[in-house]
Amino acid sequence: MPGHNKIKIVHALKQPPLADFKVGVDNVIFSVDTAQNRLLVLLVMRHQEPFLNSWSLPGTLVRQGESLEDAAYRILSEKIRVKNLYLEQLYTFGGPSRDPREASDSYGVRYLSVSYFALVRFEEAELIADGVTGIAWYPVKQLPQLAFDHNKILAYGHRRLRNKLEYSPVAFEVLPEVFTLNDLYQLYTTVLGEIFSDYSNFRARLLKLGFLYDTGIKVSRGAGRPASLYKFDAEAFAPFKDKPLVFL
Amino acid sequence: MPGHNKIKIVHALKQPPLADFKVGVDNVIFSVDTAQNRLLVLLVMRHQEPFLNSWSLPGTLVRQGESLEDAAYRILSEKIRVKNLYLEQLYTFGGPSRDPREASDSYGVRYLSVSYFALVRFEEAELIADGVTGIAWYPVKQLPQLAFDHNKILAYGHRRLRNKLEYSPVAFEVLPEVFTLNDLYQLYTTVLGEIFSDYSNFRARLLKLGFLYDTGIKVSRGAGRPASLYKFDAEAFAPFKDKPLVFL
Repeated sequence: MPGHNKIKIVHALKQPPLADFKVGVDNVIFSVDTAQNRLLVLLVMRHQEPFLNSWSLPGTLVRQGESLEDAAYRILSEKIRVKNLYLEQLYTFGGPSRDPREASDSYGVRYLSVSYFALVRFEEAELIADGVTGIAWYPVKQLPQLAFDHNKILAYGHRRLRNKLEYSPVAFEVLPEVFTLNDLYQLYTTVLGEIFSDYSNFRARLLKLGFLYDTGIKVSRGAGRPASLYKFDAEAFAPFKDKPLVFL
Repeated sequence: MPGHNKIKIVHALKQPPLADFKVGVDNVIFSVDTAQNRLLVLLVMRHQEPFLNSWSLPGTLVRQGESLEDAAYRILSEKIRVKNLYLEQLYTFGGPSRDPREASDSYGVRYLSVSYFALVRFEEAELIADGVTGIAWYPVKQLPQLAFDHNKILAYGHRRLRNKLEYSPVAFEVLPEVFTLNDLYQLYTTVLGEIFSDYSNFRARLLKLGFLYDTGIKVSRGAGRPASLYKFDAEAFAPFKDKPLVFL
């Protein structure tokens, strides 16, 4: 049916052409300063246009032959030294107009961002200042206006972190090896905020689950009774693996 | 420090250039044929190279001015008519060599795929055959070799579906308005397979949660006692919203 095909071709010609893209990766790296009960996110200061001198998530554009993950790890290895950094893909932001370089008088291509997420131990993470740009652990409660749509990406990462903390044992990955139940509780309240408040319920629930091991050692901090130091027992936790745990 | 800058420039020149991308969206659309207890996925036959005549996930390339979501909904609206289709972003696959069109003697650009996920009611979904290409609900247990890395994308989608079914009330979105507990159980076993097996435990757990409303109507199907028809009570479910429910 040549007539039918002709209609199809005309229809195809009326559609806008395919968009050309550069692809970036942006990392949302959280940490918790347990001493000061602050949730922190890693930001770097941009030293090029667009958004020169604005704070942004540490990111980079994907190079030829490079996977998305490799790009994400490459930029992080230039910014931070940390053991066992495990990045998990967060979300892809790729709408039109999210990057001023898309303008026809600039590069004229779309910029898509694949975001990655990690939670790292504050004490073990060493920031790398290369002498030119700025880098900082920024308190999530006092964020500046970030470059691009990075405030939106960060908000998405924060939601993921809250979810993970509520339903998975990720907290034990960022606490020191031994900790008091109050340390654990503080971590939860720092990340989850006011919605998380009943300590005695939290304590009872945690101890009942049976994967916290009492080291027998007690520690005194300020006023009050000495508190027991606990260890996360990975073996006792095994049956719970890949099951959601509701800590709230 | 001009010397310092020179080193930086030389370093930058030694890195591979940025990759150019086209961006595609690929949809993993599941449905459950409850009458035959089969988990199905929507596939379309490709009518162009590469992978001419191979089955693939319904996808398209993103056009100028179009968001990722708009592209995903655009291609689906050409393939399927269904009420309340809600797509959720699944994962982004963007490594080198995932698409033969990347070859230097082809288009010479990378192809990235942002995948989306949905579960639709089998009875309400109407496939649109445009007379040229093939389209089918394929049983997940009898998949052919798909184009590109679509088997991998589909496997990822299947994992997401299992998780959602275990931990969220998504099942009630695909069951008919009234259903027997056995219908619900069959849906679970169809999607989750053998790992899901204890009917009496499942039944007791579900009824205890209190968001299934007994309509008082009984239905006879084949041998055995007539079974009660239940309705999902969204109001009684409200307190459970956004909490994971472990049905296993």
